[in-house]
Amino acid sequence: MPAEPLLLSEDRLRALVALHLDVVDVIEQAFVALAEGRVIMPPIMSMELPMLNAEVDAKTAFIAGLDVFALKVSTGFFDNPARGMPSLGGMVNVLSALDGSVRAVFLDNGYLTDLRTAAAGAVAARHLAPEVVTTAGVIGTGLQARLQMRAAHLVRPFERVLVWGRDLEKAASCAADLAQDIGVEAEVCSDPRLLVKRSQLVVTTTPSFTPLVQADWLHPELHITAMGSDAPDKGELHPRCLTRADLYIADSAAQVRLRGEWRAALESGDWTGDDPAELGQVIGGQAKGRTDPRQITIADLTGTGAQDTAMAAHVLERLADA
Amino acid sequence: MPAEPLLLSEDRLRALVALHLDVVDVIEQAFVALAEGRVIMPPIMSMELPMLNAEVDAKTAFIAGLDVFALKVSTGFFDNPARGMPSLGGMVNVLSALDGSVRAVFLDNGYLTDLRTAAAGAVAARHLAPEVVTTAGVIGTGLQARLQMRAAHLVRPFERVLVWGRDLEKAASCAADLAQDIGVEAEVCSDPRLLVKRSQLVVTTTPSFTPLVQADWLHPELHITAMGSDAPDKGELHPRCLTRADLYIADSAAQVRLRGEWRAALESGDWTGDDPAELGQVIGGQAKGRTDPRQITIADLTGTGAQDTAMAAHVLERLADA
Repeated sequence: MPAEPLLLSEDRLRALVALHLDVVDVIEQAFVALAEGRVIMPPIMSMELPMLNAEVDAKTAFIAGLDVFALKVSTGFFDNPARGMPSLGGMVNVLSALDGSVRAVFLDNGYLTDLRTAAAGAVAARHLAPEVVTTAGVIGTGLQARLQMRAAHLVRPFERVLVWGRDLEKAASCAADLAQDIGVEAEVCSDPRLLVKRSQLVVTTTPSFTPLVQADWLHPELHITAMGSDAPDKGELHPRCLTRADLYIADSAAQVRLRGEWRAALESGDWTGDDPAELGQVIGGQAKGRTDPRQITIADLTGTGAQDTAMAAHVLERLADA
Repeated sequence: MPAEPLLLSEDRLRALVALHLDVVDVIEQAFVALAEGRVIMPPIMSMELPMLNAEVDAKTAFIAGLDVFALKVSTGFFDNPARGMPSLGGMVNVLSALDGSVRAVFLDNGYLTDLRTAAAGAVAARHLAPEVVTTAGVIGTGLQARLQMRAAHLVRPFERVLVWGRDLEKAASCAADLAQDIGVEAEVCSDPRLLVKRSQLVVTTTPSFTPLVQADWLHPELHITAMGSDAPDKGELHPRCLTRADLYIADSAAQVRLRGEWRAALESGDWTGDDPAELGQVIGGQAKGRTDPRQITIADLTGTGAQDTAMAAHVLERLADA
């Protein structure tokens, strides 16, 4: 009979795994598996609770070769801050890929989601950003703004980070944290246009419903990762950014069609080309990545169940090694 | 801050809740809530793993007025019996409907699903079967065959139960268990046609891919509950049964369209009428139920997230009372 399920608290998980290159590599392999057709990943289950200003998502994926798979629940209860609680939460169910038995429950309150999301940003930067990034810019001032910049710095050790947010005080606080955490110069940029202009790598991390980045801001030698949009009505980039770029890459084409920046570009009619290639195809060489430092590239990350399953397997490996 | 999540084992859950009328009433109220539009229930997330002969489903639903909601994971790993393990398993995540925090994890291995599925059969029998049922028949010989008959007997105290299965030895074992558990006469019926003919209430409980009940077997004063089909390629009743019946009722019209008996009847062109009414509408009086003892009625149960949420709330109530 299968062993009793392991129950791991957020504290325990924080002690086991953190935002280092090993996690970036784990997430990179999840994208490779996706591109190689070694992943079975059903559409996201999503429950909107408008009267509670809340939403609940579940993601799952099976990756051939891993002995577990995750089924992750993510919660967003956006009135929580008024109760002194974070908006985002969740937990991860880890099941045996051999017999379906429950192997573990990670009561992570979204910590592993934060990690794997940041790690995906680093994977995108590693494979798409110009080789030399001296200035990185982040749009948004929350936890992912901090994590995305920390993750990006692992693969593109920039000297300077620019922060823009609607609330300049929050932007200042984010910049101060980044200066301390990464040990780089950090400044608040009061104009997102200027932030894009000065950066070679930009990450957008907001739940915006209206475009924050305009197409005519894009310039040679720029990579943008848009990771904020994860629902059918969100979007951070003007749809024309996607066609203006030399390359637009999805984490999952099926998901960005419904939940990514691609959705608006399809709806507006701006996008008339083929389906975008996927990040895993770029990593594996089945699709072209950046071929010239002067190109403009965009990566669209909506977050995949494959990342959750890869993270869950990694946590159990770390635990076995500990 | 929210309290630590409760972790309940299958043993603990078995001690807390069992197949009694209180559970039938709880599930009945879930159907009423569905019919009254007090439920938000996204489509089932389903992951087929054909190379493992396995499938994983997740269901969730929010019911207004309950302070928790469930997100349930069900596993079917159909090679498990060769490993000495049951095919079906799963677990239930119970989350706060106030702030999304994890309130409990039920490591029930599918026990609560078994209960709420059997209870739904009793609800269907209560509202659709002829008032007088002397003989009940069950098609299938597994755990649900036993539970469905036990549940049906709570609301229609029949004197005799007939059992048919492809494997007559298993049918004999099921009949023996039912005789002992319910205290009624129980016989194996070697011909499903005869079983239907002799019964006023029939429950089909198989994962069949081909119809087991033919339309010309249906007779006045008969109710059939088909609860086995829960996937897009399953079906237990010949599509013409649905049109031959005076009344065909769904647990969820959206679900039976994809996963119930209705799917095949739509595909074959046999069904040309309106969408079926739902069980909760019959209970609440918004839709007609049986109006004459001589009618033929069919209930199609695919299993809803609303049932899982109602069960989860009931478990926590029982725990608070204990």
